[in-house]
Amino acid sequence: MIPQEIMKTLSVSPPSRIVLLVMDGVGGLSEGKGTPLEVAETPFLDTLAARGVLGQTDPVSPGITPGSGPAHVSLFGYDPIRYQIGRGILEATGIGMLLGPDDVASRGNFASMDGDGLITDRRAGRISTEENRRLIEMLSSEIKEIEGVEVILKTVKEHRFVVVFRGEGLDGSLADTDPQKTGAPALDPAVLDPAAERTADIVKEFIRRANRVIGDEKPANTMLLRGFSRLPDLPSMEELFHLCPAAIATYPMYRGLAGLVGMEILEGGETIADEFEAMKNNWDRFDFFFIHIKKTDSYGEDGDFAAKVRVIEEVDPFIPVLLKLDPDVIAVTGDHSTPCLLKSHSWHPNPLLIWSKYVRRDWTEHFTEAECTRGGLGRLPAREVMPLMLANGLKLEKFGA
Amino acid sequence: MIPQEIMKTLSVSPPSRIVLLVMDGVGGLSEGKGTPLEVAETPFLDTLAARGVLGQTDPVSPGITPGSGPAHVSLFGYDPIRYQIGRGILEATGIGMLLGPDDVASRGNFASMDGDGLITDRRAGRISTEENRRLIEMLSSEIKEIEGVEVILKTVKEHRFVVVFRGEGLDGSLADTDPQKTGAPALDPAVLDPAAERTADIVKEFIRRANRVIGDEKPANTMLLRGFSRLPDLPSMEELFHLCPAAIATYPMYRGLAGLVGMEILEGGETIADEFEAMKNNWDRFDFFFIHIKKTDSYGEDGDFAAKVRVIEEVDPFIPVLLKLDPDVIAVTGDHSTPCLLKSHSWHPNPLLIWSKYVRRDWTEHFTEAECTRGGLGRLPAREVMPLMLANGLKLEKFGA
Repeated sequence: MIPQEIMKTLSVSPPSRIVLLVMDGVGGLSEGKGTPLEVAETPFLDTLAARGVLGQTDPVSPGITPGSGPAHVSLFGYDPIRYQIGRGILEATGIGMLLGPDDVASRGNFASMDGDGLITDRRAGRISTEENRRLIEMLSSEIKEIEGVEVILKTVKEHRFVVVFRGEGLDGSLADTDPQKTGAPALDPAVLDPAAERTADIVKEFIRRANRVIGDEKPANTMLLRGFSRLPDLPSMEELFHLCPAAIATYPMYRGLAGLVGMEILEGGETIADEFEAMKNNWDRFDFFFIHIKKTDSYGEDGDFAAKVRVIEEVDPFIPVLLKLDPDVIAVTGDHSTPCLLKSHSWHPNPLLIWSKYVRRDWTEHFTEAECTRGGLGRLPAREVMPLMLANGLKLEKFGA
Repeated sequence: MIPQEIMKTLSVSPPSRIVLLVMDGVGGLSEGKGTPLEVAETPFLDTLAARGVLGQTDPVSPGITPGSGPAHVSLFGYDPIRYQIGRGILEATGIGMLLGPDDVASRGNFASMDGDGLITDRRAGRISTEENRRLIEMLSSEIKEIEGVEVILKTVKEHRFVVVFRGEGLDGSLADTDPQKTGAPALDPAVLDPAAERTADIVKEFIRRANRVIGDEKPANTMLLRGFSRLPDLPSMEELFHLCPAAIATYPMYRGLAGLVGMEILEGGETIADEFEAMKNNWDRFDFFFIHIKKTDSYGEDGDFAAKVRVIEEVDPFIPVLLKLDPDVIAVTGDHSTPCLLKSHSWHPNPLLIWSKYVRRDWTEHFTEAECTRGGLGRLPAREVMPLMLANGLKLEKFGA
């Protein structure tokens, strides 16, 4: 991949518009009759494939199954090895928290502990979100600051919450306190880098005080913390690519990820139709749109083949809706594959379709994994999709004389 | 790509011969009936494709449109990011100047300036090459040296010339003096790195003196300098690949580029026939021939589809001429694509054909972009073409035991 410093100097801003349509986890495996993409009736995607060029991408590298963080970081044009996003940061951005460089974020689970201090339930019986809110309120009013470090607590869902430690000189190089089994005590946050020693002390003190505040509650009388991390030092898409980008996503995590690279988050509603409506309503304000379809991944994770097919078929008729807006470049792809057979993210490459006036056609005719393996783009790291989209939008100048 | 230090240790020199035939900018886009390569009748290239193996290459990386410098540096087997060639160096080598490590070269435009020192024409009405020669002669006889630094001036064409500053401790980290618009004064050469401060002073003094020498001329009474640069520290092809290489090119820039990596420049005449004749006449003296066909690019830049087709068809019958010389390896490719639709270099990959006794055939049958996307070589960085050519010439030993 071309170095960021050079990329910055090549990027220009003609009035062309790029749409990156991500069907999360869309790539799959055949279960008899074909993959969901092969089984789905997608006349509009197929026409776009026939007029565009296909390929397949590796989110990180061949054989590596990515989480949503690295998978999106790649699609946005960044090196997912260089820019790793910690779980705490991901969770915090996922609920819309605005983090700064002095913050260490961690995921928290409310948990149950017996009289001997042994964990009896790592999720406190998945308490209700309401109960979670009540506990967070109690904790927030009792613990606002520790040794000059601000403590910020937010409910996520059920037993899950986020805690952010805000103060100078903090470091997220700490191991999880979750013992990963019941019948064992919660761990102290082990220091993975000497720079995190003070942070470890503050976290320990936080847990001590928190256990005192909610010690008499039931079933959630303690907590387990995981994924301590700080913001990666990501340059914005505006800085790197001279884009004015917007994100449309119904799930908080993807809005959070888009926020990390400086996209403006548009209110997208709940349905796919809502999302395309949001794009239409904001068409004149941006030159790059990331539109995220969640359910292809959800049904892949559920192993629900038929439902995944239905989501793909639901997206298909929005291609002409999109084309009516007269975009200059459309890329359709996944962030990673989620085969129903595996019920999880997988290492299989993403199918990729790029359409513009300037693509070199490859005579493929269907947007399927198999056709993508025969596509003119070949097999690429996913982080090359951004330079390709920019090039097709005539947004990159020549490198060298 | 394998590191240079290892490459050196693997390269050997059996008596095999490699021919790298570059049709500049040959890759294109379809305009209805297909790309120029698809429309052209090329029975001999197609036969070579059927017997060889195809693929596609990225000069720099996907989506990046290269200038001729990085595009050729890649084809010659070098990393185009590591070895960047400045515009001044490119222009100087393009007119056959032999540069050394103590030289800073710059492109110059003769320009017109009014009584207030404001630029009125950045190209001095594109004066004739003859007038340019007269001015360069005046300047050369008046300005030979500044503070121990030799000043060398050469006419390029019309308003364009080259100035080389030769002396120890010079540095090319200077901004252009061209204000990029009329009605503004020429800029002083801004220092981009403190190491270039002395060079800046010398350039300023040069411009001061030059303005005095040609101040009363019309319309060219001043100059604008651009692309200050020094030679990249390129190891030679002999050093890296143990080759004895020759270059045949009708245009100076490509002869210059070949010279930078230590190729011997053969007199090639003007026509494609002349170029192949030069190869034949020097066949015994070299084991690597770079033969450059310019016009595919020129007609691409003109947007002249039919003429680009004609050039490809003109090259085709020289394939049997070449085969009669009994080469061991032939590679046919472009340095970058130049689609008529864009009238400029583009980011689309190059079609690549490699023929030798040892290629693994891929059952492709035409030398076209689309066939190349299905070729057995897949999609590669262009700098991998050199190791592949060497390997097919049995010029690389085994790596490791």
